[in-house]
Formats: sequence, structure tokens, C-alpha cells
Amino acid sequence: DPSLKVFSLNSNRQLAEEIANHIGTTLGKCTVSAFSDGEIQINIEESIRGCDVYIVQSTSSPVNTHIMELLIMIDAVKRASAKSINIVMPYYGYARQDRKARAREPITAKLVANLLETAGADRMITIDLHAPQIQGFFDMPIDHLQGVPILSSYFEEKNLEDIVIVSPDHGGVTRARKMADRLKAPIGIIDKRRPRPNVAEVMNIVGNIEGKTAILIDDIIDTAGTITLAANALIENGAKEVYACCTHPVLSGPAIERIDDSKIKELVITNTIPLPKEKRIAKIKELSVAPLMSEAIIRVHERQSVSILFD
Amino acid sequence: DPSLKVFSLNSNRQLAEEIANHIGTTLGKCTVSAFSDGEIQINIEESIRGCDVYIVQSTSSPVNTHIMELLIMIDAVKRASAKSINIVMPYYGYARQDRKARAREPITAKLVANLLETAGADRMITIDLHAPQIQGFFDMPIDHLQGVPILSSYFEEKNLEDIVIVSPDHGGVTRARKMADRLKAPIGIIDKRRPRPNVAEVMNIVGNIEGKTAILIDDIIDTAGTITLAANALIENGAKEVYACCTHPVLSGPAIERIDDSKIKELVITNTIPLPKEKRIAKIKELSVAPLMSEAIIRVHERQSVSILFD
Ligand SMILES: Nc1ncnc2c1ncn2[C@@H]1O[C@H](COP(=O)(O)O)[C@@H](O)[C@H]1O
Ligand SMILES: Nc1ncnc2c1ncn2[C@@H]1O[C@H](COP(=O)(O)O)[C@@H](O)[C@H]1O
Repeated sequence: DPSLKVFSLNSNRQLAEEIANHIGTTLGKCTVSAFSDGEIQINIEESIRGCDVYIVQSTSSPVNTHIMELLIMIDAVKRASAKSINIVMPYYGYARQDRKARAREPITAKLVANLLETAGADRMITIDLHAPQIQGFFDMPIDHLQGVPILSSYFEEKNLEDIVIVSPDHGGVTRARKMADRLKAPIGIIDKRRPRPNVAEVMNIVGNIEGKTAILIDDIIDTAGTITLAANALIENGAKEVYACCTHPVLSGPAIERIDDSKIKELVITNTIPLPKEKRIAKIKELSVAPLMSEAIIRVHERQSVSILFD
Repeated sequence: DPSLKVFSLNSNRQLAEEIANHIGTTLGKCTVSAFSDGEIQINIEESIRGCDVYIVQSTSSPVNTHIMELLIMIDAVKRASAKSINIVMPYYGYARQDRKARAREPITAKLVANLLETAGADRMITIDLHAPQIQGFFDMPIDHLQGVPILSSYFEEKNLEDIVIVSPDHGGVTRARKMADRLKAPIGIIDKRRPRPNVAEVMNIVGNIEGKTAILIDDIIDTAGTITLAANALIENGAKEVYACCTHPVLSGPAIERIDDSKIKELVITNTIPLPKEKRIAKIKELSVAPLMSEAIIRVHERQSVSILFD
């Protein structure tokens, strides 16, 4: 369909190429470079008049550059008379601040939503927003895909026995429950608690993990503090072995070293954020969201429901 | 006046402190840092409820980070119930693309204006926008100050004899005329022209420069190609000596080397963009816009006309 155009900016070129392949097209011609002073320069090298344009970009690190690339691209696409501007955002950054937790804090997740709308986006396809409420920060339609089916399928094929799906904190229990339903397994929760102020947190484990194969699941792994402490606590409390998985591998700062040094047997991630070469350690297994995202693009483009993708 | 609060982000801390000094206050307490993954974190550490907040920030290099700092700060200030949010932007970046010069180009100068309004800014004080039309990209009031009086005063005090004010291209003739009026001098223009396609440009000089002291004036010096070629052409065509000046010293890439190697005797700049230590060569003289900007802030705050600042 020549009216469907997929463009990639700089955050996820390889994934974007995979997506274009799955759809049976090639990436639109577009150069993203910088002027001498660092200002972003975008040249769209083919006509997109009247087309439905899909722009693949995560707001991953370097996050400010990736956001500005996306905003400038949306502006250029809008002024080039595209019919619709669809953001394909595997990872939605700046989601940490999604409410005013303390006085005089910004709500960056809402700010970025407003910026994308102001630039001229019409719709967004994304996976595992840090909080599902972020959908409500947008006035445009959001197709919110899930990483759990991809991660679950991988573990299903492994045929592990006597497993328990563990959430590393209270916030992730719903996600663990979804995975447990797919794998027909019980759940556990790492229940962190500070007995008194200025005293170290106690890692209490809710649920039976004794002698079991535990699978930790989180949405984002950033510095890997949460997941590696959880893994080690599970082993200390009698788990047979620990796998871990997440949708978004931010993996900043000490993350890779911590994972390598931890009791985690294997960490399963997706490619919503590309894993650079220097972070590719043996323990990490990467799954692709390209089939899911390209199916979503095709369905959106053909005005079909995408809810089937959640089954 | 406790209802006037000046905050600085990371682009121009020293200028912001000078501005606060001139106003007779100190900078508001605010920490601008980054999370492990590079997302900007801003903490405003004093109440600003009901206050008129002035945020000093240029969108200079690293431009994308400086823009996001400003947008996030505006969001935080808005949610902290400030009475008004005033941007003090010595240098407005992304002004290069202020019209669609070629097919499928963005208009970044308009995009940034929209982003600032969306974040919640109420007003902007700035100096020498690359094109005065950019004022019309905003729906908020803009106080547009000028660098020419500051630069002219400096040369006035030098008491140079037999001077001519030269614009390095056609676009800057109005600016050269303004400076010439102040210094009671004639003007000249470097009239670049390509005789045939694929042939080097010819530097033709309009106006009498023979034996005179030429002062080149531009708004922005980026790679310094324009200004150094102009200076050398003036000397080759019989000018006695050449000074140069600009409001915004972007000075990227080969700029400093080119200036050092050129026939320019002295380059006069302002501090709308801070000059880092490694670029501080003997030839460059920096003037401060702090008196001008602080006067503008006081007048805006006291609801007085700022047009007096142009005399
Ligand atoms: N950039 C982020 N945005 C939102 N949540 C995050 C972010 N980074 C980490 N988290 C949350 O913090 C935990 C992991 O952080 P870490 O311990 O640094 O790996 C997970 O439960 C995430 O949901
Ligand atoms: N970032 C920019 N935005 C707008 N105009 C610029 C920019 N950089 C350079 N210019 C214009 O280009 C000329 C100087 O560029 P350069 O030769 O690179 O020093 C001046 O006449 C400026 O007005």
C-alpha cells in the first residue's frame, strides 16, 4: 500500500527496519543529521503528500535529543501535507514523573504528551507505558500494546517446571498476575518494608517460592538495583533458580555489572530500547517486538481492531 | 520585591547571577540534575506561589537539553501556582529554519515557540531574534531587545577614526544601518555573487572602504566562515583595519581557529551565549547584556514600557 510510509529516526533504526520488513515495505528516505552547532537537521527525501506516516522513535537515551528529533520530524511531516501522523513509540520515556509526588515537581509524562500533540501527532502506538494512566494524558487515540505475551511465550517454550512468577514490588503485581495466567503458575511478591526510619529495608517474600523456579517480571529495568536485590533475596529464601524479564531495558549506570554479578540465571528483554554492543552479555536474551508492532501498524492502517493482539 | 523571583537553568548561570545582582536579589533555589538514565530532574526548593517567575535560559548548545530543561522548568513552575512565567532567553536557538525554504522542511523556530507556549510560558524577553518575524510565531507578548546599542557604545568609547560599518551580507544591512546611525558613520555591504553555477563566489564590496577602519556586524557568528571571509576581503580591497562584532557567539566547529587566523583585529561579542574557557582567545572581547536584561525585567515587572531601552 503506497499510502503507508514508515520512517525511522535515530533511536531504533534496526527495529524500524524489521518492522518495515514485516509490513512488506522499506523505510522512507529521510536523513537525520545535525548542523555544526548541534541543532537537528531533518531532510525527508520523498513525497508524503496524502500518506499515512508512521514514525518509529523511542524517547530513550539520549532522551532530549530523541524527543527533539521526533518533534521536528512531526513538524516537517505535518507541513509536507501528510494525511495522518502516527507515532510508533516502543519506549515512552520521562514517565517516571507521572504525578506530583512532592511540592513543585513537574509532571514530565504529561508535558511530553502535550508536546507531541502540539507538534501535530494524530495517534500513538506504544508498549507498556510505565503507568496505564498516561494514556489519559493524551487527547489523541493511543494503541497500548503489551510485552507480557512476548515474554510469556519465551518462557512457555522453555518448558520450565514448578515455576512462580514474582513481582519485585507492589506496583508490578498486576503484570505478574497476567504472566502467571498465561503460564498457569502461582505468583509471589517481594514486599519491601522499612521497620524504622534510617534502618535498612527488609525484603520479605509473600508467596511460596521454596524449591521453585522464580521468574521476576518488571516493566523497566534501569539501574537494575530493584531486580538484582529481588533475585538475590529469592535465592537466599530457598528458590531453586531465578529468571528475570522486562519489556524496557534502560540499563543505565551500574546495571550490566549488577546483572552479571547477581543470582539471575537469564534476563529476558525486548528491543523497545536497542541494546548496544558493549551491554550484550551472555546472560541477556533479547526478543523482538517487531512482529507485534508491525501487526499493530497494519491493523491501524486497515482500520481493524488491535485488541486481538492482546490474546 | 519578594514577588519577583529569578531562576537560572544550566545554559547561562553566570549571566543569571549578574542579572540577579543588578536587580538587587539572589537567584531562586533550584537544582537541575539528571537521573541515571539521563532524564532531567528539576527541584525547585522554595515556594513560588503567587510570584512572578523569571527563568533565565538560552537555547544554546547542547540545544536539545537546554530546551527540555526549560520546558520541564516551566511545567514545574506552572504546577507550583506561580502568578506569571516569564522566559528570559538571551539567545533563541533553532531560528535557522524560520520558513519552508525547501520541500518537506520543518519550521523549527515556530515549533519551539509552540512548545514554550504549550508548556505554559506567559511572556518572553529576548535579544536579537535571527528574524524579527519570529515574534509573530508566539501568541504571548515578546519584549525584543537589541544588541546594537551595547556593541555601538563599546566602539564609541574606542574613538576610532574614519570608520565604516559593514554588513557581511544583504540580510544584515538594516543592522549595519542602525549601528552606523549611532556612530555617525557610512555603511558598506559585502555583496556575494556567483557569476555562473559551480564557480566560486565573488566578494564584491559595495561602498567606500579604502583606507578606512571597517567594523563588521552580524547577529550570529557560528562557524565564522561568513565573518572571516568578509574581513579578509575588506583588507584585500584596501581597508586599513577590520573589527568585527556580533550579539550571539555560537562559535561552533572551526570558528575560533578561523577567527584567530583571520585579518580581524578584535571581535566583540556579548554573553547571550557563555564563552567557554577554551574559546577565550586574546582577540575576543566580551560585553555583558546583564544591565540591559535586568533593566528589562524590572520594567516588565513594574508594568513600565521597555521601549526606552532602545534609545
Ligand atoms: N525511567 C523510569 N521511568 C519510570 N519508572 C522507572 C524508570 N526507571 C525505573 N523505573 C522503575 O524502577 C524500577 C527499576 O529501577 P532500577 O532499580 O533502577 O532498575 C522498576 O520497578 C521501574 O518500574
Ligand atoms: N544557528 C543559526 N541560526 C540562524 N542563523 C544563523 C545560525 N548560524 C549562522 N547563522 C547565520 O549565518 C551567518 C554566520 O554563519 P557562519 O558563517 O557559520 O558563522 C550569519 O549571517 C548568521 O545570521
